[in-house]
Amino acid sequence: MLQKFRHHNYTEFVFGKGAEDSVGEDIRRLGGQRVLIVYGQGGHIRKSGLLDKIRMSLRDQGLEVFELCGIQTNPRLSVVKRGIALCREEQIDFLLAIGGGSVIDTCKAIGVGFYYNGDVWDLVKMPEEIEKMLPIAVVLTYPAAGSESSTGAVITNDEIEPMVKASIGAPVTRPVIAFENPELTYSLPPYLTACGVADMYVHILERYFSPVEIGCMDYIAEGMLRAVIAFGRKVVEDPLNYDDRAEIMWLGTIAHNNTVGLGRPQDWATHSLGHEISALYDTAHGATLTIVGPGWMKYVHTSCIYRFARYAREVFGIDEADDGKAALNGIEATKEFYHDLGLPVSFEEAGIAADQIDYMAQHAVILGGGSIGRFMQLNGEDAKKIYELCLS
Amino acid sequence: MLQKFRHHNYTEFVFGKGAEDSVGEDIRRLGGQRVLIVYGQGGHIRKSGLLDKIRMSLRDQGLEVFELCGIQTNPRLSVVKRGIALCREEQIDFLLAIGGGSVIDTCKAIGVGFYYNGDVWDLVKMPEEIEKMLPIAVVLTYPAAGSESSTGAVITNDEIEPMVKASIGAPVTRPVIAFENPELTYSLPPYLTACGVADMYVHILERYFSPVEIGCMDYIAEGMLRAVIAFGRKVVEDPLNYDDRAEIMWLGTIAHNNTVGLGRPQDWATHSLGHEISALYDTAHGATLTIVGPGWMKYVHTSCIYRFARYAREVFGIDEADDGKAALNGIEATKEFYHDLGLPVSFEEAGIAADQIDYMAQHAVILGGGSIGRFMQLNGEDAKKIYELCLS
Repeated sequence: MLQKFRHHNYTEFVFGKGAEDSVGEDIRRLGGQRVLIVYGQGGHIRKSGLLDKIRMSLRDQGLEVFELCGIQTNPRLSVVKRGIALCREEQIDFLLAIGGGSVIDTCKAIGVGFYYNGDVWDLVKMPEEIEKMLPIAVVLTYPAAGSESSTGAVITNDEIEPMVKASIGAPVTRPVIAFENPELTYSLPPYLTACGVADMYVHILERYFSPVEIGCMDYIAEGMLRAVIAFGRKVVEDPLNYDDRAEIMWLGTIAHNNTVGLGRPQDWATHSLGHEISALYDTAHGATLTIVGPGWMKYVHTSCIYRFARYAREVFGIDEADDGKAALNGIEATKEFYHDLGLPVSFEEAGIAADQIDYMAQHAVILGGGSIGRFMQLNGEDAKKIYELCLS
Repeated sequence: MLQKFRHHNYTEFVFGKGAEDSVGEDIRRLGGQRVLIVYGQGGHIRKSGLLDKIRMSLRDQGLEVFELCGIQTNPRLSVVKRGIALCREEQIDFLLAIGGGSVIDTCKAIGVGFYYNGDVWDLVKMPEEIEKMLPIAVVLTYPAAGSESSTGAVITNDEIEPMVKASIGAPVTRPVIAFENPELTYSLPPYLTACGVADMYVHILERYFSPVEIGCMDYIAEGMLRAVIAFGRKVVEDPLNYDDRAEIMWLGTIAHNNTVGLGRPQDWATHSLGHEISALYDTAHGATLTIVGPGWMKYVHTSCIYRFARYAREVFGIDEADDGKAALNGIEATKEFYHDLGLPVSFEEAGIAADQIDYMAQHAVILGGGSIGRFMQLNGEDAKKIYELCLS
């Protein structure tokens, strides 16, 4: 079933070996003149020569280059504010993210904050105020968040205690162009690669588990989930295989640009529950999803058993006639997949004390405006029970 | 396997009941001032009030409205030239197609011809000359060709004898906005509905059967093919079911906007062979594909049997361990699906004499620049043998 939607995925993609070669030329074509490059610690991209190559590509086109570095995982509001000030001071007209979700999300928050007269954190609660964003180009080095063509950014507010992780987004917050060279992902450590695969897998699941009748989105999502499983397992085993890296890179992009999320309520409870773990323990985002995902499935699956049975059969090929058993087998198969990636499926496996479950459950639901999830609407008590299912 | 690609699907979509309500507002937002509405015979859209509603929506926004009607199936070059002259004379700055592939393709040819100093038919052989197109909006009434967000147009040259059907296209030839209201498709006759379903099915197959290793495109294509089969069968049985019409409408769009065609050689032999039939006998495009499709499959399947075996298993759920047998069963299942749609799978079933097979085979290959198809490259002799496999 497809409900009403408006969809405009205007991101342009340059994909393949050497994709980033034309970054200067493309940014100039798209109107950039004063470009702020944003990146992480920069160790690897300096050593590999990527950063120099990008700088040169921009300068060769006569563009002015500025830089903002030090973006960390679960990117911080304070850095976003520094970025906004810098953009205003230097009259930046184009942002170039080199990295993954954290760097891209920082750019998005800077890009919308640039046009907003007030505290950019306000926009978490007032997305309707977002009308414009500085144009963003992305040189993707970490396929995971899908932020290179999605409409959202996740920022951690480090100005309050305890820190809060929340989303800023609007239809205008997609990057205008993304350069995706799978070779740039060869050097990702196995744990990060695995976290990225888990992130894209759950991006599809958040859209797949929708409280509507089965429609084309489900069929396509099933194909994508099967592909993430197939190539995710491969890429973790053989990180230098170009073809597998390429498949996973593109899957990460389409997992989150709404290819399979149109015209339906999406769930997002797993992300909400996971964000709380990151906010308190700074756990990598992908791992938070594998910690809480199976617990969420166990808790909600009885509310719509045929969807979970279908998931088991179509995604994992589980041959079980009884819907209830099939559903449970599908949840087990999901855990097995996460284990194959080398990721934890419980607080215990992740080495997290889980001593603040009450706070996390309440806080997730407050951030969600009173409840989280659309497949099954969850209150604080539900959220707590789910966290408890994830203990070991 | 994903080869290098550049992809920019910039079409904006407004989908659902009443999607066309905002057509005037959106065209004005997108810069249109003098709008040429292009449509077919106009009988139905006049009677239903759609045409008046659209005119009013444009005029309410202060836009000047012009009209070009009478576009027929397998749209003609002569009409395209009339449209170009009209656009120049009236300084048209926006085209609005109301209809399906024929009307949209006419708009595309007018839109590129407007900027080309010479015979627009030249662009069939010189797509690199296409740098610009008048912006096009689409109110889709026939889900089939996928032209509402694809880069190609198919035009029939009626200035030569016998007529020739060929493609004009470039990255800039996607419409800028498409309004898709499934209710507008309720009135389509069963045969046209079926032809549309066949067209989208084969659009996916042309991309699926690629001479590369299995990749995410294949997994996603399999999901889409299964969805087209499921909802295609339903929509033919129950044409007034909104949900099924909606699924088929969106599937038609994504079947042809390269969602599953990126980074791989695509085949397109089935379309080439089908175009020859339309050019000579004016057969509906979708039906030409079901006439030649199974014959093409029979002829080429031995060249890559594991792909056809996979097709049978993943798309039709055929449980057969032997690849050769599975492949043949998959081809039979395809024919059965076409029959369920009420479409012919041979010249005989279509009531076509097939007395010009030699000419059609040679001509298809000439138009293809010496060969057709990429899954298996076909020469004139191959093409002839395929037509022969489609006789009865």
